[in-house]
Amino acid sequence: MAECYTWTVTIASLQHQLRDFAAQRDWEQFHTPKNLVMALAGEVGELTEIFQWLDPDESASVMTDPARAVQVREEVADVCAYLLRLADVLDIDLETALIEKMIKNALKYPVETARSTATKYTKLPPRGAAGG
Amino acid sequence: MAECYTWTVTIASLQHQLRDFAAQRDWEQFHTPKNLVMALAGEVGELTEIFQWLDPDESASVMTDPARAVQVREEVADVCAYLLRLADVLDIDLETALIEKMIKNALKYPVETARSTATKYTKLPPRGAAGG
Amino acid sequence: MAECYTWTVTIASLQHQLRDFAAQRDWEQFHTPKNLVMALAGEVGELTEIFQWLDPDESASVMTDPARAVQVREEVADVCAYLLRLADVLDIDLETALIEKMIKNALKYPVETARSTATKYTKLPPRGAAGG
Amino acid sequence: MAECYTWTVTIASLQHQLRDFAAQRDWEQFHTPKNLVMALAGEVGELTEIFQWLDPDESASVMTDPARAVQVREEVADVCAYLLRLADVLDIDLETALIEKMIKNALKYPVETARSTATKYTKLPPRGAAGG
Repeated sequence: MAECYTWTVTIASLQHQLRDFAAQRDWEQFHTPKNLVMALAGEVGELTEIFQWLDPDESASVMTDPARAVQVREEVADVCAYLLRLADVLDIDLETALIEKMIKNALKYPVETARSTATKYTKLPPRGAAGG
Repeated sequence: MAECYTWTVTIASLQHQLRDFAAQRDWEQFHTPKNLVMALAGEVGELTEIFQWLDPDESASVMTDPARAVQVREEVADVCAYLLRLADVLDIDLETALIEKMIKNALKYPVETARSTATKYTKLPPRGAAGG
Repeated sequence: MAECYTWTVTIASLQHQLRDFAAQRDWEQFHTPKNLVMALAGEVGELTEIFQWLDPDESASVMTDPARAVQVREEVADVCAYLLRLADVLDIDLETALIEKMIKNALKYPVETARSTATKYTKLPPRGAAGG
Repeated sequence: MAECYTWTVTIASLQHQLRDFAAQRDWEQFHTPKNLVMALAGEVGELTEIFQWLDPDESASVMTDPARAVQVREEVADVCAYLLRLADVLDIDLETALIEKMIKNALKYPVETARSTATKYTKLPPRGAAGG
């Protein structure tokens, strides 16, 4: 008989747990999209504060400091929690939305013109211009 | 013969695609944690602008306006992309970090005291105080 | 003999004090525009957290709670400090830049078309369309 | 007869102009503290996007690129506009709040211990410890 074990933690299952967490505390009343966007912005602000005075190299090795690593990890988790919660109340399928955006970005940033530059797509040379 | 098809899109697979997208464009040089945190903050800022003048009810029905729905969906995807990319370069397992944070929050916000209030845990009555 | 007392606290004098404060602590090395923008974003994030769960009416009366009023006042001051510091290191004259932006906005948002609506100028009817 | 001409543009006069600008367009209804905090966060997000991929040196010379200088100047003006508007609706005297915060910070970051370090005050050595 065919058996199948998948241990994958899906985004949907995490959203389900976050939804239950809020419901058990009667917090849905606070979780309007507007408020969740602010909560998301607040957590990103805390993450920003950790990195604000670090130079690029220090930021790259931030996880080597155990105390800071815990702090970064928790802020990243908070940002993730509010993003998943927001997508849930807006009924946005995160995976599909992300994949669609990546396809769109692949057209906006063709490899041959976007290579090695942080220039915004609106200022990139026309497709092919940089190619052979 | 046991066959098993799982179509789950995992966070890891999305991160893998984002990593390839950056590598193909030689963008890893720009993707320091510090820069990615700023990019994440920038996208959250764009999401905030969509909701800034909406009242709670308008924000709850924001997806009923097709044009706005596309815009919200794309900004949410951008935020998600930079969060996954940041977690990837920091080597943070998002699912585990999120689950650990939820366990921690469950202790900070016990159902009986946190019910129906947005009060920060530091100002909640001691555990049980609000219970029967 | 003509005497003249002006007690006006100018933006320039506040910037001078902030510059001295940083110099006395040898902090100019941390005050790159990039870092100051992050510090500004971090403080705005803290301000956002105070308002995230409040409905519009609660936010309008936030200063009636003495404890919260102190907190709001301090976060607003922190945002102001980093904005003045940023303008200083970028050598931007804040008053002139603000007045110029207001003139530009007056053209983008003519009274007759922008009245009572939060619609972005790019989506406003052509000038005069809403007028008599 | 004593005559006195002062051309100082005060923060109060700028706030007065911003208040009139909003009133003429019947925008006070949108300018709740909560909404203004979001608008402030949105503008800081746009400022962040300009700096996100720049390294510290590039960010220090950002104003040497005329096109970018105009962009930075306008975003800084937008942030300033919403900060002044927010302080106005909250009835916070920005100069006094800022000066009080600087006095508080001077105690939190004594010169002898805070010198040349970006360490948060909560982690600084006790006052005098680093002094002679």
